[in-house]
Amino acid sequence: MKTPYLFHGQDAFWATPARDHLKVTLVSESDRQVSAIFVRCEPDNEEELLDMSRGETHGRLQYWHGEIPLNSDIPLTHYCFKIMQNNRQWWLHAQGVTPRVPGKEAHFKYNRQAQPPAWVKQQVFYQIFPDRFANGDPALSVQSDEYCLRGHERPTIAKAWGTPVSSHDEGNGPNEFYGGDLAGIQSKLDYLQKLGITALYLNPIFAAPSNHKYDTTDYHRVDPHLGTNTQFADMVGDLHQRGMKIILDAVYNHTSVDHPWFDKYQRNTDEPGAYNHPDSAYRDYYQFDGDSNEYIGWKGISSLPKLNFSNPAVQDFIYAGEEAVIKHWLRPPYQIDGWRFDVIHMLGEGAGAVNNARYVKAFRDAAKSVNPDSYVLGEHFFEASQWLQGDQEDGAMNYYGFAHPVRAFFTGLDIAYHRCQIDAEELVAWLDEARGKIPWQNQLSQFNQLDSHDTMRFLTMLEGDQDTMKLALLMLFAYVGTPCLYYGTEVALEGGQDPDNRRCFPWERTEKPNAMFDYVSHLIQLRKNTAALQEGSLQWLYAEHQQLAFARTLGDEIALCLINNSENAKTLTLPVWQLGIEHAVLQDQLTGDEWQVKDGQLSMTLAGKEGLLLTLT
Amino acid sequence: MKTPYLFHGQDAFWATPARDHLKVTLVSESDRQVSAIFVRCEPDNEEELLDMSRGETHGRLQYWHGEIPLNSDIPLTHYCFKIMQNNRQWWLHAQGVTPRVPGKEAHFKYNRQAQPPAWVKQQVFYQIFPDRFANGDPALSVQSDEYCLRGHERPTIAKAWGTPVSSHDEGNGPNEFYGGDLAGIQSKLDYLQKLGITALYLNPIFAAPSNHKYDTTDYHRVDPHLGTNTQFADMVGDLHQRGMKIILDAVYNHTSVDHPWFDKYQRNTDEPGAYNHPDSAYRDYYQFDGDSNEYIGWKGISSLPKLNFSNPAVQDFIYAGEEAVIKHWLRPPYQIDGWRFDVIHMLGEGAGAVNNARYVKAFRDAAKSVNPDSYVLGEHFFEASQWLQGDQEDGAMNYYGFAHPVRAFFTGLDIAYHRCQIDAEELVAWLDEARGKIPWQNQLSQFNQLDSHDTMRFLTMLEGDQDTMKLALLMLFAYVGTPCLYYGTEVALEGGQDPDNRRCFPWERTEKPNAMFDYVSHLIQLRKNTAALQEGSLQWLYAEHQQLAFARTLGDEIALCLINNSENAKTLTLPVWQLGIEHAVLQDQLTGDEWQVKDGQLSMTLAGKEGLLLTLT
Repeated sequence: MKTPYLFHGQDAFWATPARDHLKVTLVSESDRQVSAIFVRCEPDNEEELLDMSRGETHGRLQYWHGEIPLNSDIPLTHYCFKIMQNNRQWWLHAQGVTPRVPGKEAHFKYNRQAQPPAWVKQQVFYQIFPDRFANGDPALSVQSDEYCLRGHERPTIAKAWGTPVSSHDEGNGPNEFYGGDLAGIQSKLDYLQKLGITALYLNPIFAAPSNHKYDTTDYHRVDPHLGTNTQFADMVGDLHQRGMKIILDAVYNHTSVDHPWFDKYQRNTDEPGAYNHPDSAYRDYYQFDGDSNEYIGWKGISSLPKLNFSNPAVQDFIYAGEEAVIKHWLRPPYQIDGWRFDVIHMLGEGAGAVNNARYVKAFRDAAKSVNPDSYVLGEHFFEASQWLQGDQEDGAMNYYGFAHPVRAFFTGLDIAYHRCQIDAEELVAWLDEARGKIPWQNQLSQFNQLDSHDTMRFLTMLEGDQDTMKLALLMLFAYVGTPCLYYGTEVALEGGQDPDNRRCFPWERTEKPNAMFDYVSHLIQLRKNTAALQEGSLQWLYAEHQQLAFARTLGDEIALCLINNSENAKTLTLPVWQLGIEHAVLQDQLTGDEWQVKDGQLSMTLAGKEGLLLTLT
Repeated sequence: MKTPYLFHGQDAFWATPARDHLKVTLVSESDRQVSAIFVRCEPDNEEELLDMSRGETHGRLQYWHGEIPLNSDIPLTHYCFKIMQNNRQWWLHAQGVTPRVPGKEAHFKYNRQAQPPAWVKQQVFYQIFPDRFANGDPALSVQSDEYCLRGHERPTIAKAWGTPVSSHDEGNGPNEFYGGDLAGIQSKLDYLQKLGITALYLNPIFAAPSNHKYDTTDYHRVDPHLGTNTQFADMVGDLHQRGMKIILDAVYNHTSVDHPWFDKYQRNTDEPGAYNHPDSAYRDYYQFDGDSNEYIGWKGISSLPKLNFSNPAVQDFIYAGEEAVIKHWLRPPYQIDGWRFDVIHMLGEGAGAVNNARYVKAFRDAAKSVNPDSYVLGEHFFEASQWLQGDQEDGAMNYYGFAHPVRAFFTGLDIAYHRCQIDAEELVAWLDEARGKIPWQNQLSQFNQLDSHDTMRFLTMLEGDQDTMKLALLMLFAYVGTPCLYYGTEVALEGGQDPDNRRCFPWERTEKPNAMFDYVSHLIQLRKNTAALQEGSLQWLYAEHQQLAFARTLGDEIALCLINNSENAKTLTLPVWQLGIEHAVLQDQLTGDEWQVKDGQLSMTLAGKEGLLLTLT
């Protein structure tokens, strides 16, 4: 018995949320003797099977329509479909079609209370590590021996733009500076717009001794070596004038030991910090062992003392108070468009993550109270499903659901740089599992990257193989979730593990024609001009060995992404009738080549390492 | 590249919880070039990969040892294993071995704070529907027209023992009585002990007009047609004298409309109930629409008004007060051993399940405050993983993780009596998925049944096929979880859907030799004499088409269950070297037949519909 081909358009497209119910549509193959379809939901945790009605047919496709009540006991409504076919039953859920009811994690999900901002999925983000992007005001640059990074006992080192970053063994990760600053970023906005970028994500910019600035000393002040608060406000104004967005890095788990609250090195004798002063007004901002100088550092790192979130004063400062810092930068004159919360899964009471969800929700509420349309983004290196059910984060840095599987498929490495071999079938299972666990709107608002300031650059993992890099980039721009480029990717910047992944931007590469730049800017234009790539449903058409094909569909717009990750040519036959296409011409938007669909099948040969993005002509 | 055969003994056997860490042991095939194994955990939600050390070898098996910290931010610690083999990696988790990190639901789990009582897994339960088991005191029996079931507007009907139950269409489900009572149950304890039963689960016994008694009118009084409180205390004493246990049905989601708090028919004019009296002291025990007579009934059923758990008086009465009813029956002179909470997933504030977890935890705490060793069992027809992480229920009526998959495999029907065809491979995937989501100790404390008062009897779903029934019973007694027989199963009692599944016990069948009784009592003895069946780890050796084989291992004790659900004979070769058996003789405990293991393989032919339970001689 053959499985009836089945497809449930994702919520965005098919399910129409009304005040208290959800309309759902499902498509089956019309000649597969499906006798009935139920949509299954669980109001108050009790199964309800609701009959779907047989609707219109379209070619080989039979449409079915149904309606489910939205859950009233919890914000999330989850549902799946039970299909009766002759003597069998099939279940369609977020991870595929199986002969039995799926586990709850695989049900489709809709959150009636909390939706991510609509603008997020329309963006093309660009991540900037400020010290390494562009030096716009050399007068601000950190000088050699200007100060000492006291947690590390290292003096600052000023290095010439483009000279090699110290190796990790040299230990100069955080104390060498190249002079990048806000003026530099602002001076390159024309460049970024030419590339097609619509939104920036900046690594931390607030006062901090290190070059990475994850060791804050002042949450209210832009680091003076990067610029001023006024200059930042001006830059955001410029970005908004251009229709661009900006999000900042929020480092609220811990501070620098030089933060005046902590003041390990006793700079301020008038108002003593917590260290060495059990009577300090700030003592309970951190977590000391009695009156001793023993305290909790993030992951045991003594230079990064962990804030004590059970202290109402810390709560007020970070999120709860009227003037809380989360709110502060969302308000005029800054009006940033969202926050990327650093190591948010580790934050909580005491040494670790006790009551973590409480604080993540509170951060969300604080941000949304100022701007309901702000983007709440969490950093998670591993599975983040529990933060992405709607009530906590809008999206996550999508290592688990995008970077890791894509890296394994194209580079054969996992996050620990261990060998990890998966074929296209396993890639799709991984992507589907991660996506299927969260509501569709949150899937669209995931923050997809191939690499970041915390990983080896993707191109370097590929040992410089630009052909494969292009396939991975195609995946980034065609897949579900908002794409983000790590600065320099568009000019094939390489870099090994931290700190080598933070090399200076090689501006000389932008002065002459650059094939990677052209390819990336072409992909960006396609992403921006094709709403189906931003929010269309996802349908896999092929996934075996080193080849995969999927469609993104929004209304009448269809985009097909085909990838051959083998060195060898491969002939594929794709059942595009499943998209409602019987006879048509499809055009590759990267090369202009045209392909003929006959009788609902697209037969074609992909060259080795070829990737295509086809649309209906 | 071949997967390295891998096995993680379940917590019970291999993982030794210490105060703040867990020792874990893993077994690999020794010649598979495994270069390293990591155990992966997530303290404070951050991945930690800890090296395991290579330990002893045993035949083809290589043992590995490791230790992980117990999570301090949450009660649950979850973990899995990463295995490095040549150029590949494999992950071992609660649902198998895969080439990538598993989703969090599939990690092994250990709850450091809450464990089910140790006695539960050692029991063989027997479920009794009191009106239909045995009539010990005819003077108590409900008479025809004795009273009217007013929600149903039906008078009581007294029927002769063994006469057919009315069909569903006749509508006499709840109002016909056969006279079963506590005295009847007590009179049959010798019989039950002869069968091997060690624990009883009684459907509701408290005062209620219907025969099923899910419509309570007095939570503190045994229904007078079943017996008296004193008689019940005496029966529990008798059970405890015999070393037996008893759990009762807790119906706290709703009451009868005849409960004095509600008193729809205005029997008590001195202290008016909530219905028709907006000023009643009990008005807020229920959920009325303003001053009207509109109220919320469970699932819209007007005869079962839903209690209002946001009312502190209801909280006090049910669980919070010193004299709360949950505590009352756990105390002398009754000292029941646990509660089976009816429709517990639907209970909460307002109309449905709002803040459900809060109340389930509170029920648990109330029960454990009187007897930390009491069994907290929840009724769930569908996936119950969220209630079974340790902090809510000890176990669930395991429809989702046992009854449904086993029913689908043997009877081809699902819970809605729709056709559902699965093969042995899908059966195992289903069983593993359900088990793997919850801590091992909770897996062992699941309440496994083939059928109950809420389903068609299994034998009837099989259209009377006793050969297949015996295979399903073998599965019940050999699988993980505490087995429960629905009364009469041991004498092949049949019965269709409710109310036909509640026929009178056919005592005449016990008066002469009965093959099914002998088979069931034999299985029960094996279960009781084989600790590996009660708490041994589970290892699948075969699962294809209609055949399956698995082992339960505890220390040196190994039991192998083999099932051929086909009508045809089938030759199997089982890799028992995976259990550390290279050369041995295995004996079937059901027939005494012996089988030879050679070079780690057990080759044998199973006859059609044959089931074996082998142990080492």
